[in-house]
Amino acid sequence: MKYGITIFPSKPIQDEANSYRKRYDPHYSLIPPHLTLGQSFELDEKSVDVLIHELKIIANGTKPFSININKVSTFAPVSNTIYFKVEPNKELLELESKIHQSKFNIEREHAFVPQITIAQKLTNDEYSDVFGRLNMNEFKFEDVIDRFQLLYQLDNGSWTVYETFVFGRELV
Amino acid sequence: MKYGITIFPSKPIQDEANSYRKRYDPHYSLIPPHLTLGQSFELDEKSVDVLIHELKIIANGTKPFSININKVSTFAPVSNTIYFKVEPNKELLELESKIHQSKFNIEREHAFVPQITIAQKLTNDEYSDVFGRLNMNEFKFEDVIDRFQLLYQLDNGSWTVYETFVFGRELV
Repeated sequence: MKYGITIFPSKPIQDEANSYRKRYDPHYSLIPPHLTLGQSFELDEKSVDVLIHELKIIANGTKPFSININKVSTFAPVSNTIYFKVEPNKELLELESKIHQSKFNIEREHAFVPQITIAQKLTNDEYSDVFGRLNMNEFKFEDVIDRFQLLYQLDNGSWTVYETFVFGRELV
Repeated sequence: MKYGITIFPSKPIQDEANSYRKRYDPHYSLIPPHLTLGQSFELDEKSVDVLIHELKIIANGTKPFSININKVSTFAPVSNTIYFKVEPNKELLELESKIHQSKFNIEREHAFVPQITIAQKLTNDEYSDVFGRLNMNEFKFEDVIDRFQLLYQLDNGSWTVYETFVFGRELV
């Protein structure tokens, strides 16, 4: 089965992200707005139990931390993706690093760029138009992160949460 | 915020349910296929922490149990809803009952009918056609339930998982 590891930001950020995703992100209906910690990876059922054990230990070793969003940014020209840029901070980078150092060696496709996608797979014209407008907007969000989630993907491409890991609150 | 409590059945059941939901359920993109334990209810942030504490105790007092699906059924003529009928069993009824007896008095709109919706809001003609066909099909699913989930609703009507409660594995 295909799994992923994400943080769901709080409702106000999700609602704001969805106001753009609805029009500009073809994944809008597949998953709520999220910050990806581990991109989709294949795992059998037995290994998942071991991974969950590891994720609980990681969650217990993590303290709730703040994240800040101040602006949108983009992966262009590599891809016409626009996202809420999450300012990197030590706690977030450490959390992502620990997850990738787990024995499952969850691979990164790219360097870790903390972000919440709000638009993707745009044509060049759409991209210029949307990014031009959003880049003028001011975004100011602060959020406290105290958990992350393990999800699996259904045949239709959508994602279901399998388990939540709350910092410092997991029974190992 | 508006919360709900559900069980997500395993991937094979979700995939099968989605093959019908895609065409016949306008909530298809708002939430994965699910068995509702607690219908949507309003709760403020402080009360949620108390509810979560209660739900952990309930989860720890519940053992994994099997559910069986043998056929589709319907709420017609009350509503043109078609669902995978989950055979009621003691453990499932007890779990639902405990959740409704929590101090938040999560209200039932109707008697508890364990079910996974696969079609709703059909016109009468659609309903007759779809139910006529599905009622002839044989469905045979067995699943082991070992967790339930607390979700909240976003402004667009979709649901995000807030926390998972694994039977016997919660730190209280």
